[in-house]
Amino acid sequence: MDIGQTLYWIGLAGCAVFAISGALAAAEKQHDIMSFILLGVVTGIGGGTVRDLILDRPVFWLVDPLYLEVCIAAAGLTFFAARKIKFKHKALVWMDAAGMALFSIMAAQISQQWHASWMVAMVMAMITASFGGIIRDVLLDQMPVVLEPEIYVSASLLGALGYLLTCSFQGVEDGSANYLALAIGFSIAFSVRGAAIIWDLRLPKFPPPAAE
Amino acid sequence: MDIGQTLYWIGLAGCAVFAISGALAAAEKQHDIMSFILLGVVTGIGGGTVRDLILDRPVFWLVDPLYLEVCIAAAGLTFFAARKIKFKHKALVWMDAAGMALFSIMAAQISQQWHASWMVAMVMAMITASFGGIIRDVLLDQMPVVLEPEIYVSASLLGALGYLLTCSFQGVEDGSANYLALAIGFSIAFSVRGAAIIWDLRLPKFPPPAAE
Amino acid sequence: MDIGQTLYWIGLAGCAVFAISGALAAAEKQHDIMSFILLGVVTGIGGGTVRDLILDRPVFWLVDPLYLEVCIAAAGLTFFAARKIKFKHKALVWMDAAGMALFSIMAAQISQQWHASWMVAMVMAMITASFGGIIRDVLLDQMPVVLEPEIYVSASLLGALGYLLTCSFQGVEDGSANYLALAIGFSIAFSVRGAAIIWDLRLPKFPPPAAE
Repeated sequence: MDIGQTLYWIGLAGCAVFAISGALAAAEKQHDIMSFILLGVVTGIGGGTVRDLILDRPVFWLVDPLYLEVCIAAAGLTFFAARKIKFKHKALVWMDAAGMALFSIMAAQISQQWHASWMVAMVMAMITASFGGIIRDVLLDQMPVVLEPEIYVSASLLGALGYLLTCSFQGVEDGSANYLALAIGFSIAFSVRGAAIIWDLRLPKFPPPAAE
Repeated sequence: MDIGQTLYWIGLAGCAVFAISGALAAAEKQHDIMSFILLGVVTGIGGGTVRDLILDRPVFWLVDPLYLEVCIAAAGLTFFAARKIKFKHKALVWMDAAGMALFSIMAAQISQQWHASWMVAMVMAMITASFGGIIRDVLLDQMPVVLEPEIYVSASLLGALGYLLTCSFQGVEDGSANYLALAIGFSIAFSVRGAAIIWDLRLPKFPPPAAE
Repeated sequence: MDIGQTLYWIGLAGCAVFAISGALAAAEKQHDIMSFILLGVVTGIGGGTVRDLILDRPVFWLVDPLYLEVCIAAAGLTFFAARKIKFKHKALVWMDAAGMALFSIMAAQISQQWHASWMVAMVMAMITASFGGIIRDVLLDQMPVVLEPEIYVSASLLGALGYLLTCSFQGVEDGSANYLALAIGFSIAFSVRGAAIIWDLRLPKFPPPAAE
């Protein structure tokens, strides 16, 4: 399996994972199947759509509708399968963590292809990783999970930074597929977020303790 | 009146109808006239703007500001006239249904012109028809009407499907104006939504009954 | 300092001002520093990003990442400094007024460069000035300040109108830098908004008194 193909499957998996998180959020509020699909699609493709609009790239799911099909299928399956999954909220949080990590490194890589600076690449990672979930939470009229005091955006930024640093050490910063950098970036983002979930780690709230 | 012109008037009517629904929502919350205009404009042009951004077309109301003028006029008139309309909520729901049906078939037709697949055309119909109302409801901090268990997105998808099927039967799928297909698509979307409003039809909620 | 440079600093100041308003909103809800930065960035660049997407211009903070750096720095500094500022809500409201006035005239000027009609220029001013704050308020799950019955959108529209009228009197409507017009437009928008804040001016609510 060549490199482009691997990235392609990673992207599909990320969309599916976010679509499931959107559908599980619909399940918590006992919506109908169309609501599952709408929330699944919007959550799955929302972050990447905003990324592509800002970078002025063709929107990825217009170029390849398989992303849409995956989101619709994932949301539909969740409608019929979610009843049997215990700890729905827990599943949602972990799905979301995996999707966040995947989208962060992909956005950083795509930004490299656009010759963006590191800071732009990290902000694009933050936007891509968080906007699907933000749209989901805004539609369901709940406080976006990215604004909760748990570590979320930081994990995304650190994952993107890990990816960029690895690329830099290897001297390949043109956005070509880099397994090691992608693996390192994903691991950092996912494990930072995972640690925050398990041990309930939080950044200090405002007002900062340093100001005492 | 040639075909292009007819579609043009349909589009204007759809914007006006959505702008009125935005203004009626502002009336329910007793906002001022600027709020009427802002909500009217955003609801009227929001769905089509998102559609054009995603398809990378020139945004329709930049090309032809008459759409804006119609939205502003419709919202302004509503401010002065809405007092006399009884059953404001009912009027809002029916206006919304007509706008949804119009926008669904127009989005399907425009997607055909972009050589999009059927699934993309249906998703674009769903997005165009629902995003104006979603933005309206999000701004007013209420649960988006499209996520309520009433049939809304389904009506939009069925209308787009009816349009696409009719075009397919006639062998004309390049997005050229097709009265019959547009009429059939509109009728399906509007009557499905109308039936749902009148008889309070709903899709089964999660968890699905099949899972018993 | 030449004219282009002046406008550049005005733009940076507007972003910083909006970023601080986003960060102060995060302070009110006692969020952590990442939330400050996310809200600061989204509020600071949100309106201009929507403007650039609609006008199909390159998004301004991709072209020049200094805007991002300014937003991040402003939000970060606010995290550590906001504790010492009394009357946080008051500061937020005045920051917001200055950012609104700046963004309104800039959007009107950029629209002129795109050969947009006056109405489009005014609507772009309204969108640019209000969308950063709208996104901020939607994310924090509160009624957008632009929909409150205080005068906000009107101030933005009047400022843009003042700018356009001055340009028109001078016969220069190609969007080239026009100090006088920019100063007049800014003064109108800021003082109308300021007067509304100080004396609690409001537009008549619906239903309009004329309908009695």
